Amino acid sequence: MKKKVAIVGAGLCGSLLALRLAQLGYQIDVFEKRPDLRKVTLDAGRSINLALSDRGLKGLRLVGLEDAAKAISIPMHGRMIHPKGAETYFMKYSGRETDYINSISRPGLNAMLLDEAEKTGNIKLHFNQSCKNVLFEDHKIQLQDVNGNISYYDYDLVFGTDGAGSAVRTSMSKRSSSLRFNFSQQYLDTGYKELEIPAGENGSFRIEKNALHIWPRDGFMMIALPNLNGSFTVTLFFPFTGSNSFEYLGQDDEKIVQFFNTHFPSAVPHMPDLVEDYHQNPSSSLGTIKCFPWSVDRRSLIMGDAAHAVVPFYGQGMNASFEDVTVLDELMAKHGEDWDSIITEYDDKRKPDADAIGDLAVDNFYEMRDATKDPVFGRKRALELQLENLYPDYYAKYSLVTFNEDISYHEAMTQGRFQDEVLMNFARGIDDVSKVDISKVKAMMDEKLKEFKAQKS
Amino acid sequence: MKKKVAIVGAGLCGSLLALRLAQLGYQIDVFEKRPDLRKVTLDAGRSINLALSDRGLKGLRLVGLEDAAKAISIPMHGRMIHPKGAETYFMKYSGRETDYINSISRPGLNAMLLDEAEKTGNIKLHFNQSCKNVLFEDHKIQLQDVNGNISYYDYDLVFGTDGAGSAVRTSMSKRSSSLRFNFSQQYLDTGYKELEIPAGENGSFRIEKNALHIWPRDGFMMIALPNLNGSFTVTLFFPFTGSNSFEYLGQDDEKIVQFFNTHFPSAVPHMPDLVEDYHQNPSSSLGTIKCFPWSVDRRSLIMGDAAHAVVPFYGQGMNASFEDVTVLDELMAKHGEDWDSIITEYDDKRKPDADAIGDLAVDNFYEMRDATKDPVFGRKRALELQLENLYPDYYAKYSLVTFNEDISYHEAMTQGRFQDEVLMNFARGIDDVSKVDISKVKAMMDEKLKEFKAQKS
Repeated sequence: MKKKVAIVGAGLCGSLLALRLAQLGYQIDVFEKRPDLRKVTLDAGRSINLALSDRGLKGLRLVGLEDAAKAISIPMHGRMIHPKGAETYFMKYSGRETDYINSISRPGLNAMLLDEAEKTGNIKLHFNQSCKNVLFEDHKIQLQDVNGNISYYDYDLVFGTDGAGSAVRTSMSKRSSSLRFNFSQQYLDTGYKELEIPAGENGSFRIEKNALHIWPRDGFMMIALPNLNGSFTVTLFFPFTGSNSFEYLGQDDEKIVQFFNTHFPSAVPHMPDLVEDYHQNPSSSLGTIKCFPWSVDRRSLIMGDAAHAVVPFYGQGMNASFEDVTVLDELMAKHGEDWDSIITEYDDKRKPDADAIGDLAVDNFYEMRDATKDPVFGRKRALELQLENLYPDYYAKYSLVTFNEDISYHEAMTQGRFQDEVLMNFARGIDDVSKVDISKVKAMMDEKLKEFKAQKS
Repeated sequence: MKKKVAIVGAGLCGSLLALRLAQLGYQIDVFEKRPDLRKVTLDAGRSINLALSDRGLKGLRLVGLEDAAKAISIPMHGRMIHPKGAETYFMKYSGRETDYINSISRPGLNAMLLDEAEKTGNIKLHFNQSCKNVLFEDHKIQLQDVNGNISYYDYDLVFGTDGAGSAVRTSMSKRSSSLRFNFSQQYLDTGYKELEIPAGENGSFRIEKNALHIWPRDGFMMIALPNLNGSFTVTLFFPFTGSNSFEYLGQDDEKIVQFFNTHFPSAVPHMPDLVEDYHQNPSSSLGTIKCFPWSVDRRSLIMGDAAHAVVPFYGQGMNASFEDVTVLDELMAKHGEDWDSIITEYDDKRKPDADAIGDLAVDNFYEMRDATKDPVFGRKRALELQLENLYPDYYAKYSLVTFNEDISYHEAMTQGRFQDEVLMNFARGIDDVSKVDISKVKAMMDEKLKEFKAQKS
């Protein structure tokens, strides 16, 4: 007899989880506090996109949607770097042609998952139902509709996939002491604001389509990801306070225009609605959430951002959430209906990986902001691209995280950091990468990696 | 014109703060969710005591209560160690006779502070008034009495001294994103349970009065602090799960008796109500809370455990809270009625110290549990006691934290850790402390400390 499953939150993680459980024959009620995003345009029609990479694709493959997702994606083969006052240049994500990431619409992908989930016939979607509390002892969810009416739902198993501000996690934190609920939220001093580069004539792309664009600056940066309609979603990552900051610019049109003209002169001509967008869109904060345990009495489980919200600088938030579902699926295959074992093993297995991607994402914020300007880092990056290009078995840290879904985030982090250290040391001692014999670098790295792996085991 | 001040929480920190502000002429309303502890016996009459040391005494000196507090304290000159199957021995806290800590009753000290605060005539104490929320934009506290009636209080300034589970902090965390409220709570796998050694005949002390008793064991320990009435408050620090744990013993009388007879045979004869106490008293968790910022719009401030709850293994929780008041007082003297400056400077100055004592307390948990059994640690401790004994200017880490209120916790931590490292290295290379020329150790340490301090500046 399969358990009666409730899922709180019908975002990307909740929708994929619902679909997979439905495919396995579970009867599922999904509660989502917002309206059905397939019927209502949320976020004032803004087009939000995300970078879908191999770990996310693995989750979509599980439910048979990999090709469908790729069909609504735009491949991004590398970073297009727009330095200030210098030529734009392209940095590949990997030395392998087959390794790239994909810009995909968040609402588009979410809608696809919800459509597919409904088709199974095993899912009831309840929109505009906000989770107010989970009564873990009674196995009930307290729900509130838009009119304030309260109702209760009895579950055998409840999943909290309700995002960084998770109500299910908040219910857990009320039992902090008895659960010994470790929790941490850490914000960056930098926030973000979404802007836009609209499509050019006839839906053309005003800047290179197949790239993630970065305008690195001193203490801040701007990025842009392409959308299918020819537009780019632009994000300004910007300190809240200080000499160049949200606080400093305030709502002052003159300051805003002067700031963008000074720092992003090549982008400004492509952003006709810049000042209006700047005023209209919020300045949002960026935080990392870590917590543990993720379950109460092994009859509940928080997943995705609810369990491990990360900053966006590794492009892994959605991918990590989809990988959560993959890991859970493997454990369901192993343990059948024994949810005690599934949840216990999930918690133990997944926690180090969630911590790792949280830390990697913060590291990458500093790398994108600061290290990309460092010539040693430039040489190191050139070396690792050559290594990847010449040796199909070589994965640099970024590739271990992004293009190697068969090793865990934690392994990718520890091994990748070790490789970084070796290559940075090497890059410090040279001044011209083209004079380096890459086969010797590879031999050295192989030896050091052998020692590293021997030490670990 | 002095601001209208509200204080939420009339525990140790809130009472000392109220008293000090009242002495400076502020009009203060204090809201406490519990009844007046001077009229009602809380906690089933259990006698809870704490270790009062120099930083706490400095706070009491500020309000003129140092001598009065000492009069109701019992000096503890060191740790009385009760090893399993070996002779009990005494380890002094310091090489100086004048350095000791004081066992004091928590409710006794709290009552003294409340009495003294009321005498000023500037304070209104409101008991049984629970803070439900702070409306920071409107500068209002939402209060609830025992009958559920809601009322509001308008403040110019509000202090949250409402402990580890602070309602004021919870109100701040509702604004997490806009405040970028960094927050972390981390629990130990070990919890605690209070037990008792009652007084002997005619109020005599059954074990040494002037010591903090420790029964260190493998993975757990028991401690006892003396009370004025001849009894000792005993605390068992014990893992929640595992082979010797709260979970393992459960509520099984036989297991409980066998466990104590096996591991604490010398203590059991002094604990006639052991089994009853074990059943009756809760098994509580031990956590560290760190957060920041501590204020909203510089019109509110959380202090004491509300801002920085620590585990009890350095005996510094109350002392750190009292030091908060001392630091605030110094800034009031500096900035007068300029609370913007007071609160800004308080936050910046105090945060590294609060983090330091939180970390030191967790370190000391492992030191008390594990390191005290290590012979190298034993030699290192003997060396530092000799250093303190021969050189009045030498303070070991414990003494820097406990007996040197003129340097900050952060400085005590960094310098103390450095000294520990130097002495541990030295202790590894010797086998008999009595053969060591202490003057040479002192000369070496002086030189290394000079380098350390030069490096820091």
